[in-house]
Amino acid sequence: MTSPKQGQGTSQGQGMSQGRGMSRRGVLRRGLLVGAGAVGGGVAGGAIGADVADAGSATRERTEPFWGTHQGGIVTDTQQHTVLAAFDLTATNRVELVALLGAWTSLAGALTQGQAPTVPIYAPPTAAQRSAYADATDASSAADSGEATGLGPARLTITVGFGAGLFSTGGTDRYGLAAQRPAALVDLPRFPGDELVADESGGDLFLQACADDPQVAFHAVRAIARIAPDVATLRWTQVGYSPSNTGGTPRNLMGFKDGTMNSNAHPPADLDATMWVGAEGPEWMRGGSYLVYRRIRIALEHWDRLVPSQQEQVIGRHKDSGAPLGRHDEFAALELSATDPHGTLLIPAEAHVRLAAPESNQGAVIVRRAFSYNSGTTPFTERWPPWRQALEYNAGLLFLAYQKDPRTAFVPIFSRLAITDALNQFTTHTASAIFAVPPGATAPGDWIGRTLLAP
Amino acid sequence: MTSPKQGQGTSQGQGMSQGRGMSRRGVLRRGLLVGAGAVGGGVAGGAIGADVADAGSATRERTEPFWGTHQGGIVTDTQQHTVLAAFDLTATNRVELVALLGAWTSLAGALTQGQAPTVPIYAPPTAAQRSAYADATDASSAADSGEATGLGPARLTITVGFGAGLFSTGGTDRYGLAAQRPAALVDLPRFPGDELVADESGGDLFLQACADDPQVAFHAVRAIARIAPDVATLRWTQVGYSPSNTGGTPRNLMGFKDGTMNSNAHPPADLDATMWVGAEGPEWMRGGSYLVYRRIRIALEHWDRLVPSQQEQVIGRHKDSGAPLGRHDEFAALELSATDPHGTLLIPAEAHVRLAAPESNQGAVIVRRAFSYNSGTTPFTERWPPWRQALEYNAGLLFLAYQKDPRTAFVPIFSRLAITDALNQFTTHTASAIFAVPPGATAPGDWIGRTLLAP
Repeated sequence: MTSPKQGQGTSQGQGMSQGRGMSRRGVLRRGLLVGAGAVGGGVAGGAIGADVADAGSATRERTEPFWGTHQGGIVTDTQQHTVLAAFDLTATNRVELVALLGAWTSLAGALTQGQAPTVPIYAPPTAAQRSAYADATDASSAADSGEATGLGPARLTITVGFGAGLFSTGGTDRYGLAAQRPAALVDLPRFPGDELVADESGGDLFLQACADDPQVAFHAVRAIARIAPDVATLRWTQVGYSPSNTGGTPRNLMGFKDGTMNSNAHPPADLDATMWVGAEGPEWMRGGSYLVYRRIRIALEHWDRLVPSQQEQVIGRHKDSGAPLGRHDEFAALELSATDPHGTLLIPAEAHVRLAAPESNQGAVIVRRAFSYNSGTTPFTERWPPWRQALEYNAGLLFLAYQKDPRTAFVPIFSRLAITDALNQFTTHTASAIFAVPPGATAPGDWIGRTLLAP
Repeated sequence: MTSPKQGQGTSQGQGMSQGRGMSRRGVLRRGLLVGAGAVGGGVAGGAIGADVADAGSATRERTEPFWGTHQGGIVTDTQQHTVLAAFDLTATNRVELVALLGAWTSLAGALTQGQAPTVPIYAPPTAAQRSAYADATDASSAADSGEATGLGPARLTITVGFGAGLFSTGGTDRYGLAAQRPAALVDLPRFPGDELVADESGGDLFLQACADDPQVAFHAVRAIARIAPDVATLRWTQVGYSPSNTGGTPRNLMGFKDGTMNSNAHPPADLDATMWVGAEGPEWMRGGSYLVYRRIRIALEHWDRLVPSQQEQVIGRHKDSGAPLGRHDEFAALELSATDPHGTLLIPAEAHVRLAAPESNQGAVIVRRAFSYNSGTTPFTERWPPWRQALEYNAGLLFLAYQKDPRTAFVPIFSRLAITDALNQFTTHTASAIFAVPPGATAPGDWIGRTLLAP
């Protein structure tokens, strides 16, 4: 067992030793950061006495590590914004793929550290475009699109994932990688209730850009997508956010603090046992992880018509405090066998927290890195009287779960949840993807995917 | 002429006298706020020495005024997030409309000031729902949905607007208001290049919720929309954001500081001449304003292929500094007749800033309160060889422009821009609306719309 975040210090806490096996690590880590803020007073001091709105200047300049054993953006304290992007690969050979991943890594390293791009991020125009815009475009230019200029790194992290299509597509082994596909990179089964939009699911390559500024995160995706557009083309993007950091688990759009026990803010102490691929996986994935992405639409209109006491029965937590039913502290352990004087379970048999808890899943653990999303409104038709058409919010949760092996984590956990979770009355999974997230690039010059493509 | 922001102090600057007729007021105001922050040291001091991420605690507790001569959210310094929402009215009579606006105002006042809601925001279930969920719903409950609990007011403002449909719909005068429709509340003409989505345009009632936290803004819309859902139903919502406040005009997704001369961060000195309805309008609109909303999609992929020097010719500003071409300071005045030694105009004839400038529009002025939006990606088909289908970003600008009279401001300005602006090569207007924004509710008990419905 190694210390959590091996190879990944925190932005303010680099060099601080972190205890092993601490429970609720994130809480302690947050506590430690208070001290770290005092040590790094040059930064924090910049905010003192200044316009409160410009306290943001200190936040803007914060960086998260990029180079390391593990990729950033996994156990990194969740940033306030994310832009997810999946790509279809159109590269015709392995050389193009290697060049692409090398350029992506180099650019991601620079962007996350607030440095000038080290690779041209301007896509040369095609021959047809060149003749049409001969005087307006310049293939030698390496122009950044500029919309994030002055916004700082803002704790940007860029995390790269590999979808099944990298290894083979329709039975074709485009890049000679079919034999390297990890067994843990399963095709997810169709779960009961799935209503997946194919065009917003899957992908051969994946980017998770997170930052404390929405424009910084989007800029990262735009910049990376501009490298070799004829080698990897966008398949879908999805924007999400986390509400302001108030110290505990952020409230989701249902108004609940959910995912408290498996949030990346306080993941299991032994990440090697639950999160990072070890000797059991293919060598090229060692230090990596697996990501399951589910976009979960929440029927807010219906949820809001349920009184809070009933909502609490569905979730299994108190709405206000976030504590498990019957407890008072947000971070109190679940007492799944506790009953009231009549012998009724305090946490109902179908409550979400009970079914999602490791105790109910042979110890299986995922580490959630969730964001809310709000994509406006879409029309719907009510299927029973009074028949009507109206709008509903297209909003809910971007569920991002990292784990050592989906076959023993997300798949069995959600297979049960999809059938019995009381929450299913209010949620619909509308997009899905699974990616192998390879280990990090250890230093400039290294690149994400090297362990697979040039071991 | 009255002082700008009459009846609307700033959150930190209430009671401070503000100079009249100052140019670039916002810049000066920002300067004043540094001092105000020191005065309000109890708030700013909370951030000192704490985790930088929790510097947000001071930001969360900031409020903007709600009660006053003018509605908030117009000249208020732009918050980081917005959720716009338009409603179709289904109220069958004026009594329901009056009740709705009274409840909306009361709730908006409480939410913006960080107070507990003063009206039940729980919509009683219909009879059919009641029988289906008899034990789970409770019409007497006034439950807040809770997702913004603990996030503070976060400078929330809620601004209410009236669309043409309030006054008459299909020739029907539902509420006896047809004669009260202001002449300035015109039906916008179809502009060249408009590609408007009808379902995402227009509306009888409008809400602009802005806050420094995205969940606080969305919560406000959700809460207000839940009041009397059978009287006003959602027509569309649109989410937007402003990048972190770096002191100057925020960069848009094109990477440019645009709208510098007519941003709400430094509006024209004499707001009574340009922004607020006066004696020339109907009595009930005095102190109000008119809002034109345009969702402007930007072809980022094409824009990013233009070298910055050419982009600058399109905009008429330097990309890095934001200064007008030929000048060095972001806030330098446009010198529209300046030429280079060869006699060529420094700011091209079709540059965006030239065509949008008051000097080019008989002095017409709008006050922009713009946000970026990023709604992911949507498919497109290229219309010329090499023919292809791919994805493009569904992203761009939420243009919100306030003005005293659209007939002498947005309509003539944009009528010219829509034909000659070089920027049109890269922009498409995909949604549109115009609203009369009535004066503010002056104190608790007053309500927005009273001047129209119960003068």
